[in-house]
Amino acid sequence: MTSETPFQHLTTDPAVQQMLAKAKENHISTVWDRYEQMLPQCGFGETGLCCRHCLQGPCRINPFDPGAETGICGANADVMVARGLDRAIAAGTAAHSGHAKHLAHTLLKMARGQAKDYKITDPVKLKKVAARLHIAVDGRADTDIALDVAKAALADFHEKDTPVLWAAGVVTPGRVEVLSKLGLVPKGIDHEVAEIMHRTLYGVDADPVNLLLGGLRCSVADLAGCYMGTDLADILFGTPTPLASQANLGTLKKESVNIALHGHNPVLSEIIVKVAGEMADEAVAAGADRINVVGICCTGNELMERHGIPSCTHSVSQEMALVTGAVDAMIVDYQCIMPSVASVAECMGTKVITTMDICKITGAEHIDVKEETAAENARQAILQAIAGFKKRKNKPTHIPALTNTVVAGFSTESIVAALSKLNAKDPLAPLADSIKSGNIKGVCLFAGCNNVKIPQDINYTKIAAKLLKENVLVVATGCGAGSLMRHDFMDPAKTRDLCGNGLFAVLNAIGEANGLGGPLPSVLHLGSCVDNSRAVEITVALANYLGVDINQMPVVASAPEPTSEKAVSIGTYAVAAGLPTHVGVMLPVMGSALVAKVLTQTVKDLTGGYFIVEPDPDKAADMLLQALNDRRKGLGLV
Amino acid sequence: MTSETPFQHLTTDPAVQQMLAKAKENHISTVWDRYEQMLPQCGFGETGLCCRHCLQGPCRINPFDPGAETGICGANADVMVARGLDRAIAAGTAAHSGHAKHLAHTLLKMARGQAKDYKITDPVKLKKVAARLHIAVDGRADTDIALDVAKAALADFHEKDTPVLWAAGVVTPGRVEVLSKLGLVPKGIDHEVAEIMHRTLYGVDADPVNLLLGGLRCSVADLAGCYMGTDLADILFGTPTPLASQANLGTLKKESVNIALHGHNPVLSEIIVKVAGEMADEAVAAGADRINVVGICCTGNELMERHGIPSCTHSVSQEMALVTGAVDAMIVDYQCIMPSVASVAECMGTKVITTMDICKITGAEHIDVKEETAAENARQAILQAIAGFKKRKNKPTHIPALTNTVVAGFSTESIVAALSKLNAKDPLAPLADSIKSGNIKGVCLFAGCNNVKIPQDINYTKIAAKLLKENVLVVATGCGAGSLMRHDFMDPAKTRDLCGNGLFAVLNAIGEANGLGGPLPSVLHLGSCVDNSRAVEITVALANYLGVDINQMPVVASAPEPTSEKAVSIGTYAVAAGLPTHVGVMLPVMGSALVAKVLTQTVKDLTGGYFIVEPDPDKAADMLLQALNDRRKGLGLV
Repeated sequence: MTSETPFQHLTTDPAVQQMLAKAKENHISTVWDRYEQMLPQCGFGETGLCCRHCLQGPCRINPFDPGAETGICGANADVMVARGLDRAIAAGTAAHSGHAKHLAHTLLKMARGQAKDYKITDPVKLKKVAARLHIAVDGRADTDIALDVAKAALADFHEKDTPVLWAAGVVTPGRVEVLSKLGLVPKGIDHEVAEIMHRTLYGVDADPVNLLLGGLRCSVADLAGCYMGTDLADILFGTPTPLASQANLGTLKKESVNIALHGHNPVLSEIIVKVAGEMADEAVAAGADRINVVGICCTGNELMERHGIPSCTHSVSQEMALVTGAVDAMIVDYQCIMPSVASVAECMGTKVITTMDICKITGAEHIDVKEETAAENARQAILQAIAGFKKRKNKPTHIPALTNTVVAGFSTESIVAALSKLNAKDPLAPLADSIKSGNIKGVCLFAGCNNVKIPQDINYTKIAAKLLKENVLVVATGCGAGSLMRHDFMDPAKTRDLCGNGLFAVLNAIGEANGLGGPLPSVLHLGSCVDNSRAVEITVALANYLGVDINQMPVVASAPEPTSEKAVSIGTYAVAAGLPTHVGVMLPVMGSALVAKVLTQTVKDLTGGYFIVEPDPDKAADMLLQALNDRRKGLGLV
Repeated sequence: MTSETPFQHLTTDPAVQQMLAKAKENHISTVWDRYEQMLPQCGFGETGLCCRHCLQGPCRINPFDPGAETGICGANADVMVARGLDRAIAAGTAAHSGHAKHLAHTLLKMARGQAKDYKITDPVKLKKVAARLHIAVDGRADTDIALDVAKAALADFHEKDTPVLWAAGVVTPGRVEVLSKLGLVPKGIDHEVAEIMHRTLYGVDADPVNLLLGGLRCSVADLAGCYMGTDLADILFGTPTPLASQANLGTLKKESVNIALHGHNPVLSEIIVKVAGEMADEAVAAGADRINVVGICCTGNELMERHGIPSCTHSVSQEMALVTGAVDAMIVDYQCIMPSVASVAECMGTKVITTMDICKITGAEHIDVKEETAAENARQAILQAIAGFKKRKNKPTHIPALTNTVVAGFSTESIVAALSKLNAKDPLAPLADSIKSGNIKGVCLFAGCNNVKIPQDINYTKIAAKLLKENVLVVATGCGAGSLMRHDFMDPAKTRDLCGNGLFAVLNAIGEANGLGGPLPSVLHLGSCVDNSRAVEITVALANYLGVDINQMPVVASAPEPTSEKAVSIGTYAVAAGLPTHVGVMLPVMGSALVAKVLTQTVKDLTGGYFIVEPDPDKAADMLLQALNDRRKGLGLV
């Protein structure tokens, strides 16, 4: 720790460091303070060795007391740990798919003419998705197709004669076979969530391997929810194409009405952006130069990918946006919104506005947003922000003068389009050839959150830096993308410095062929956390192109700073899909040697994927590289 | 503690006391030993003040440390407690409705001719249920109606254009209105479970009241799952009618092949009973006098209610069945099966056979039972039991010579039929009149489990004894029924001693009118825990008859010794339905004064129901009586 950066043990983001100083000055409690107060954390919970699944408990298993090897019911450490992990997977699955279900309802209402503020923005994607679902497209009106797609989406939540289409229909044929043999093809997304809750009840499943297989199946349902979330958002709001934007707290503007949109689902944020564009006059009348919409977390990613809306900050530093004193309203939908934002907002004289009926926060204002009245609701919220600006405009703000250039907007479609400039007839060939030649050693997906236990962003940046130098193509989603963008990994001007020669050559060739006059950014931003589906889609396309299954592909995933149960379910479906999957925070499974072994070793014999649990970023990078090299060897590549 | 009953502080059941002595002698670890080892239990878990919903945690809130009032994310005690309670409700809902869904699949397969071992046993109930669902019945084949009922049941798990039919269609019109106004009508059973998992995720709902309302809605979905479970089981296996049976460990027979059926769902156990009846010769050939099927927990209740199969024991004493040394196979389906049974079985040289893919137990043998091959699977399991008997037959057993006479087999239908002997045209009139006259002061439903924290059965027996003397009509389900039956409350010979004069007169009049030559038992056994639906059905019928809503009825519920999360969800739906609902074990909510207040007071203004949390049975009885008196006053009754 030096005097220049007294908070570098908390965050590696200099803008956040500045805000931490201000928070300290103003005695504002932050997530880091609360973490400090929580130490030491409960060792039972950390290792998964506590259980509250019945009223005879709570039970704890002390690994150092050989006399107490089970809970009251007789569940041993393995069962307890596996049950706990399963419930986390169920929660993550429920969240992603709840988001997707919300979009399915929006699409349905739009198609039925009940949600006039929405439209089909990408009819090409609509038809692509419909075709995958075997829904007729020829000669049909887009809204009719959309209606059928929405119904098919909603049908995927329950058991029916077919398995979950968004799972079985989106992976390689080989993967369908592997999953089918293992009984891991989900029957219905909500069905799988409920089944996990049933089997983890007191007195139900007490076989840790059986429990873990159940968790794996649920995670495949999570993949379905994510994939559906991406598909439906693209149909409604457009499939991302490359664009330039900016990141970090410097995107807040003293003279503007600053609206921070936080959460995950574009259903509301898209309308806010649109309506904000129509309300500039009202902002000017209030003394502002304009309305400045910025994003936080995945709502931010969704908006950046589609509209180039700047990302203000992400994950663990969300409170810092408020600490600037410049946010006139933080409008949130759901997921990853720390309840503390309401009290930080209160300290700063601004407000948090909740908008979804399943996500209210004590101390926040609530506007009940419905698709039928979305524009009107958005207007209401924006008026609050303008009113907030009026109160705030003559007060000091502390906006760090730090922004990062970001080129974002990558999607399977936009990547294939970019590649087609190199080879119009066979767009995947340049990528496949680069992998074969070793110009690209493999692909790493960074996903997940920040976690207060880790100096913010340090794992992302250290691992990514090492992998890029080794010519690994890096893609990122969620707060992984957020992290890397705030450290210039998405600035094309830095690609040359960050990448190895092989990778640079590929990124540069694509950039040049697409008239960018230079390379793509070193890390490709694939979107929000549901958009991990895009990484799956690209991997599947490449695997099919190469005639192999996913578990043979030189592709790895990493959640180096995970927090949400969503990260657990995503990591698990990456393993189910066949990928070596790194997590940089200990999962609460270390209380069971058996569960730890199944997740890191045994599962490899089943799905080909496995977890790599490694908190040290340098070692993690080496392990990911080793995994890629092993895969290359398996394919006969050097 | 006296030398005669050294285990009376653990259980009030003398048969179980004998077995505890044997377990101690043989150094067999029991649930009571493990509870002892677990003490002191974690105070954070006990009060609901710990959270493992993300990887930044685990968090704990120390109520005595004013500096640490929130978890790392900022969730305060209220949020933490409400989230935890919600997940328990979701788990309970998932379990009951998973059971119901299983039955729906069985009915569907039966109707499609894919499950030849099943048939429609009660076509009258089929038509009654179909009519409630607005499914045409006239002139249609039973299997066609059954197919539609099964499809309607499966459709209730997901959102559709109608709310959950098994919820909105089974309560009073007034209740539908109350629930609708509060937004508590579930859209789909699995949907509600998944939504709870979503809203309790890190960074979603942080408003404790909103969370509790979500939990209430989910609990109404639990009512639907229970009700559906009862309906479909009655259709497939018959609606219970009064019959005589026996309870307690003395129902095991040294000379017989003893099969203990444990769990909840009659889908397998019904077939075992049938096939066992056909395999007597094989048992005799092995040296046994016969096959003796006994039940444990709710599988036992289901079999007792429909076939008079004796109940061996229940809940917390399930291990004791094995300790007798006389069980030749414990065949289990799911829920409330302590994993410890596998190790106790091993100690005793017998085995546990698991049968459901979501419920395996390390150390148990697994037979994968499917409806398509149910009889064959049952035969396999019974052969194992016969083989077990061969090994066991010359070894000593320790079967307590204790049985209790039980008259069971009550259902709405059989109660109405019995009442119709008093008034054929208006069968509810005698019951309604008795309530009005005060011969019956009100109705109390006992439901739930045993809990190792409470001397087994003491709360049930003490509260029931007091209420019966005060002329409260007592009905019971699940291990509540199990508890009371093992203490002679279902023996008609004890009715005179147990009941007040008014109640006795009513029970005797019904018994005499039905040719029993005496009264009904003092407590009416309504079935398994899903059959709490029967209590709801009777209450609703009476409320409709009296032209009032459930929240006006002199009806209370009590789970005096709850363990399972299912008890939490049942208790919550009783509150949603409008009933004063007692729980005799502290729910993990005491860490939040707000949540505790909402559950015990505020909710009364919303649904009319509320929780009474009182561990002391005498006080609890008084509070339940007070609640009944208040309701009577409200109706203008003395």
